[in-house]
Amino acid sequence: MNKKVLIEISARHIHLSQKDLEKLFGKGYRLKKMKMLSQPGEFAAKETLNIQAGSRKILGVRILGPARKETQVELSRTDAIYLKLNPPVRISGDLKKTPGIILISPKKKIKIKRGVIIAQRHIHCQTKEAEKLGLKNGTVVSVRVKGERAITFHNVKIRTNKNFRLYMQVDTDEGNAAGIRIKGKGEII
Amino acid sequence: MNKKVLIEISARHIHLSQKDLEKLFGKGYRLKKMKMLSQPGEFAAKETLNIQAGSRKILGVRILGPARKETQVELSRTDAIYLKLNPPVRISGDLKKTPGIILISPKKKIKIKRGVIIAQRHIHCQTKEAEKLGLKNGTVVSVRVKGERAITFHNVKIRTNKNFRLYMQVDTDEGNAAGIRIKGKGEII
Repeated sequence: MNKKVLIEISARHIHLSQKDLEKLFGKGYRLKKMKMLSQPGEFAAKETLNIQAGSRKILGVRILGPARKETQVELSRTDAIYLKLNPPVRISGDLKKTPGIILISPKKKIKIKRGVIIAQRHIHCQTKEAEKLGLKNGTVVSVRVKGERAITFHNVKIRTNKNFRLYMQVDTDEGNAAGIRIKGKGEII
Repeated sequence: MNKKVLIEISARHIHLSQKDLEKLFGKGYRLKKMKMLSQPGEFAAKETLNIQAGSRKILGVRILGPARKETQVELSRTDAIYLKLNPPVRISGDLKKTPGIILISPKKKIKIKRGVIIAQRHIHCQTKEAEKLGLKNGTVVSVRVKGERAITFHNVKIRTNKNFRLYMQVDTDEGNAAGIRIKGKGEII
């Protein structure tokens, strides 16, 4: 059985709710597509935001589309430490008791009350492909990465959906720790 | 046999040669000790430098003492990407074909021709203690870290010396990827 998986580094980014998108860019605003991403329908937008916590800012954080149910800011722990925030490690969408942050567009500044997370590393997998690999939604696996900075990531959550494509996603800290440049390869063990 | 090891996160820092120290701070200058470190004799100095590559700067990078044979700047890959540098992953002191950088003190700016590295993860171990653990200088081991972001670091180099104390050192990317805050625990496997 082939259990190889491509690994993508997911840099800091923002998902906006339609409501927050319109607050920041104006009524009826639609994000401009810059690049399609590995998961069908998902794209990196041309638009970026500056984010601010206390006196610290990070400029030019990419917005990903399409709009989500709730605004969510995904940072690396390195980013979080710089911003003096302490967000939990969470699966996307699980935003209970997460810190808020200030979002700044060229037109407007808004404060979200919650939504900052460090993404839990996970593997997107098409439902039937997962079955073939002996995996299902919620299964936790380890993934071994070879090379100079060889690492095994444990606690990697499988997320299945009929539209998903097989990709593991890690943040920049994890990618850098494993010596991965942009894309890497791993093996589910 | 107890193969547990304390893990320290080593943030970006600078080791200066006596010559570069004097260029930056003046003839006969001595670093002021701020804090002793885990390895005997090593200390974090009160002094910091700004570092610059192209138009990008990182401010307030800690100097560690005492002076070394050659100036060396240890960055995380996150830092290196920000500075648009591509330093190799190296054991301390192995500076062949490494990029240079600009070092800026309150008094002076100098350019070093080489010396920027990403530190290879390693374990300092007292020579006799290493023997007891079945390890010797240069042995490569794996270290497992438990927790929410559980990881196994492979390619961890053992470095022995009669004065070393048993500590594993990782950079901030590696520490953050493993969910370690300041200090963590691992097991040599």
